[in-house]
Amino acid sequence: MTFNKPYLIRLAHCDATGMVFLPNYFYIFNALVEDWFYEGLEVRYDEYLMQGHLALSTVKLETVFSAPSKMGETVDFWLTVTHLGRTSVRFTMGVDHEGSARVRMQRIAVLTSQVENRPVPWPDELREKINEFMLG
Amino acid sequence: MTFNKPYLIRLAHCDATGMVFLPNYFYIFNALVEDWFYEGLEVRYDEYLMQGHLALSTVKLETVFSAPSKMGETVDFWLTVTHLGRTSVRFTMGVDHEGSARVRMQRIAVLTSQVENRPVPWPDELREKINEFMLG
Amino acid sequence: MTFNKPYLIRLAHCDATGMVFLPNYFYIFNALVEDWFYEGLEVRYDEYLMQGHLALSTVKLETVFSAPSKMGETVDFWLTVTHLGRTSVRFTMGVDHEGSARVRMQRIAVLTSQVENRPVPWPDELREKINEFMLG
Amino acid sequence: MTFNKPYLIRLAHCDATGMVFLPNYFYIFNALVEDWFYEGLEVRYDEYLMQGHLALSTVKLETVFSAPSKMGETVDFWLTVTHLGRTSVRFTMGVDHEGSARVRMQRIAVLTSQVENRPVPWPDELREKINEFMLG
Repeated sequence: MTFNKPYLIRLAHCDATGMVFLPNYFYIFNALVEDWFYEGLEVRYDEYLMQGHLALSTVKLETVFSAPSKMGETVDFWLTVTHLGRTSVRFTMGVDHEGSARVRMQRIAVLTSQVENRPVPWPDELREKINEFMLG
Repeated sequence: MTFNKPYLIRLAHCDATGMVFLPNYFYIFNALVEDWFYEGLEVRYDEYLMQGHLALSTVKLETVFSAPSKMGETVDFWLTVTHLGRTSVRFTMGVDHEGSARVRMQRIAVLTSQVENRPVPWPDELREKINEFMLG
Repeated sequence: MTFNKPYLIRLAHCDATGMVFLPNYFYIFNALVEDWFYEGLEVRYDEYLMQGHLALSTVKLETVFSAPSKMGETVDFWLTVTHLGRTSVRFTMGVDHEGSARVRMQRIAVLTSQVENRPVPWPDELREKINEFMLG
Repeated sequence: MTFNKPYLIRLAHCDATGMVFLPNYFYIFNALVEDWFYEGLEVRYDEYLMQGHLALSTVKLETVFSAPSKMGETVDFWLTVTHLGRTSVRFTMGVDHEGSARVRMQRIAVLTSQVENRPVPWPDELREKINEFMLG
């Protein structure tokens, strides 16, 4: 299953070229993961971070940018899970517009305890929910 | 008429205290004005800026912060117009949560031409639409 | 005494008009307060926040923007203290370029305990150091 | 030759975990490239973008995060060139702290004309200057 969400490209996302300033894509990708928790997994991201003292720490990112996005466009962000390890997860994420690819990202993240500062296994309930977004 | 819109307080908005990092409020207030153009005035903000070579330049801001907002809350942003001059507009804007005030802002902005770099009068069509959001 | 610091206006600060995107000024003003702690007061801002569990919470901001700043300019930010209360401080801050004013800000902030979530009196040592930046 | 620059990790860079919020690293990496232009290549980045109508468009990023950075640390950012093509450049960039690696990044970018919206060859003068930062 894929989690899809459209985002408006705002003035705040663009630099003096009128196109998305690259670091701002990573903000929207973080909003996508946040919205996937709230709306896809139906898990409160704030409680998971603040009360659960957990973090989803990115360890590797590979990103290919094939076409720019400009202010006023509403573009399609999406996320799917391609691997779920004992403490890790691998996402494929993308940005599309009218069916053509703008950005492709591979992202490996690890569930970590903010208290112990080390990887921890996925809780069973979260693992089951994430599994539903596993590709294929 | 008041333009209202809820926004989720995201991880990206908060600093190490877990509360909204103050400059990030101004980002959301800019998103509010942008959304007011698209959804309230039904004017494309991107065309107004990029093709129309106009800008809504803030000249004065007064902001009072009475209570902090924290990650995971969905808070109510709103905007109303309290004065509409020949080239200027005065907004009252706010952030509320469960009926109590978090932020109050007075904002005076001037319509400026990016080409001539000086204030220009509101086009009649835009003036009429903005008038609908005049308080009282 | 006035605390002065030049900052380069970066691509990241500017929007599609090529001028500073207004919320980004507030980022730089926060960097100015941070640098004032480290370099002016010679107090570690990170320890004050993270180990001291204190915060400098802004309660009121008044800002006047008189001329825009553009990418590539190095502009002069400055800060002076105009009132020091039992738990509060009032700053006058500004942005100048080649001697003419770009931005003027009045900012009232309160020292708060992150643990008790209420205003706390300035520690004597900090009060003495802040007093050196009192105007006049 | 390697271009090195220390950056202070600010409150604004950190999220509610007290560590750098990942997208903010990309802001600092962009500041690094900007500072490399001004200070390393001694080319005005603003003129290159705004008067020259050129852009340095990233097409691929690979980033490995091995340890977090926290507020108040001053960390070492660096950049070296590993390939210089007709219209492209490949950078290796990093963040170190006290000699140990925090972040490693491979970045491929293409010089593009903002007018024609396509890759353009490096001007000879810029090519020569970039060549000085070629590894080995």
